[in-house]
Amino acid sequence: MRLFSLAFAACLSASVGLADPLPSWNETQARDRIVAFVDSVTDPEADTYVTPSDRIAVFDNDGTLWGEQPVYFQLIFAVEAFQEMVKADPSLANTDALKAAAAGDYAALAEGGKEGLVEVLAASHTGMSVEAFQESVAAWLAEARHPDTGLGYDRMTYQPMVELLRYLRDEGFKTYIVSGGGIHFMRVFAEEAYGIPPEQVIGTYLESSYAVVDGVPVITKEPALAFVDDKEGKAINIDRIIGKRPIFAGGNSDGDFAMLQWTTAGEGPRFGMIVHHTDAEREVAYDCDSHIGRLCDGLEQGPELGWLIVDMAEDWARIFTGAR
Amino acid sequence: MRLFSLAFAACLSASVGLADPLPSWNETQARDRIVAFVDSVTDPEADTYVTPSDRIAVFDNDGTLWGEQPVYFQLIFAVEAFQEMVKADPSLANTDALKAAAAGDYAALAEGGKEGLVEVLAASHTGMSVEAFQESVAAWLAEARHPDTGLGYDRMTYQPMVELLRYLRDEGFKTYIVSGGGIHFMRVFAEEAYGIPPEQVIGTYLESSYAVVDGVPVITKEPALAFVDDKEGKAINIDRIIGKRPIFAGGNSDGDFAMLQWTTAGEGPRFGMIVHHTDAEREVAYDCDSHIGRLCDGLEQGPELGWLIVDMAEDWARIFTGAR
Repeated sequence: MRLFSLAFAACLSASVGLADPLPSWNETQARDRIVAFVDSVTDPEADTYVTPSDRIAVFDNDGTLWGEQPVYFQLIFAVEAFQEMVKADPSLANTDALKAAAAGDYAALAEGGKEGLVEVLAASHTGMSVEAFQESVAAWLAEARHPDTGLGYDRMTYQPMVELLRYLRDEGFKTYIVSGGGIHFMRVFAEEAYGIPPEQVIGTYLESSYAVVDGVPVITKEPALAFVDDKEGKAINIDRIIGKRPIFAGGNSDGDFAMLQWTTAGEGPRFGMIVHHTDAEREVAYDCDSHIGRLCDGLEQGPELGWLIVDMAEDWARIFTGAR
Repeated sequence: MRLFSLAFAACLSASVGLADPLPSWNETQARDRIVAFVDSVTDPEADTYVTPSDRIAVFDNDGTLWGEQPVYFQLIFAVEAFQEMVKADPSLANTDALKAAAAGDYAALAEGGKEGLVEVLAASHTGMSVEAFQESVAAWLAEARHPDTGLGYDRMTYQPMVELLRYLRDEGFKTYIVSGGGIHFMRVFAEEAYGIPPEQVIGTYLESSYAVVDGVPVITKEPALAFVDDKEGKAINIDRIIGKRPIFAGGNSDGDFAMLQWTTAGEGPRFGMIVHHTDAEREVAYDCDSHIGRLCDGLEQGPELGWLIVDMAEDWARIFTGAR
């Protein structure tokens, strides 16, 4: 009898959803629209029903699943990793960009433009095996702290988004990251932080080489960009790697516009959402004028395209996973 | 009581494996080694146990999961699709290679070398949307028949390999194709033929472009190779797309050598297998001297690397899914 009661309670809980799947979302229209969409595609009786194998959801990472201010966290890693390298060998800081990186001078680094950034990425990300690179990322994540919040970077995930990812998976979705960030960098924390395994992390990647060194096969990261997973590249990479059009896409900048456009232009029920950084108090408020995560087209065209614009200040009860 | 009996029978059947998972494999050492490996990584009590999320299995397609003689089936598609195009517009056959294709002259086409082949692929595979391309592949598959067997090409899958894929999945593996074939081509039949969904099909891909045409976003296949998923490229693509080292890899040619090497060089239990085409009676016998599916290094070094060399004539009770 006791077993039966437990089983009954479990069924009841599952069927009527007693536990709130989105506790960090306020009871606003944003939350209602998400839940209504998920209900519509998971109800086998509805003509909007989507089979589980087609419930593909894709999310940008920087600014959508975790913070991206004052600069992309991967750039902070690159600079801090390079600073460690320079401690061991000061002669490495041999260009203007690398000198700026060694000094932790992000403003000077930004002035150097894209070429300077690529120099810092090359110095900190390449000429080593994928394993060695990922060990250096893991070691950094364990120690590094964000300059404003004092949190570890992997604690600066957005708690409402972590809940959304879990909610979607509980409802039969397969969740992917499709980000401008580097694949090898993101895979170090994506599974623990988001529940997203390596094979569902899509991003920017460098060239790599395969060779047998002293009898051991090694994949080495090479200092040349192979594919930038941003803007149109996101839609192209989704087609190449997933091979199906998602039914749900979330982003926060115009770099995500094509991904949301591609997703929501498909037939049947589709959901596009943009995380709008409106909360100057708990985070940083920015959109069209920002040097990072610039959002103009999405704000202007998103609503008429039916996309949900999430107002972080209004819609989220909590921001970071690591802080209330 | 009846419910209990049914449940008991189901448990019994699952635990002692009453149904033979590999009925088209003869009772030889090859089959025993596969089963012993799977048992070793799925037994939670064994120190060789591998958690399900790390049970990644990768397979070449041409010559490993389906036939590849007398030429790659995708090339036959390209030629036959081009012949259809030429019927509508004879002026398309305007180079030596395209004339050879229009005439169905594979020997002349082979003489033209790689450049000629790329011309035929470009003519039949590009300048159209991914959807339009995949519709043309599906239409071809429905009608086309292999010159020797008379079978539809998607009935020329190797039944023992189809069973192996299913067996591995039943034992908690995630099965991938990692092939020199084109991603958009293979995805048309991989799910039905092998139970492998689009997101687990990795292959060669052309450049593609994303544009909004008359208000509709379109991904168009462009006439330039972006990545050739062969040799070292297979290991690189596995790292890029799966992000984990597989524990099981199957191939049939030296184009698969790096993939098997990368897979089996990992720590812990690993399995590499090579399908050796030894059956002149039921299929075609070929290896080191073949122009297609050339296998020298794998035959020579495979055994000392611990790889299983499957002898199709000895180890397989049946070859094609579509013929006994």
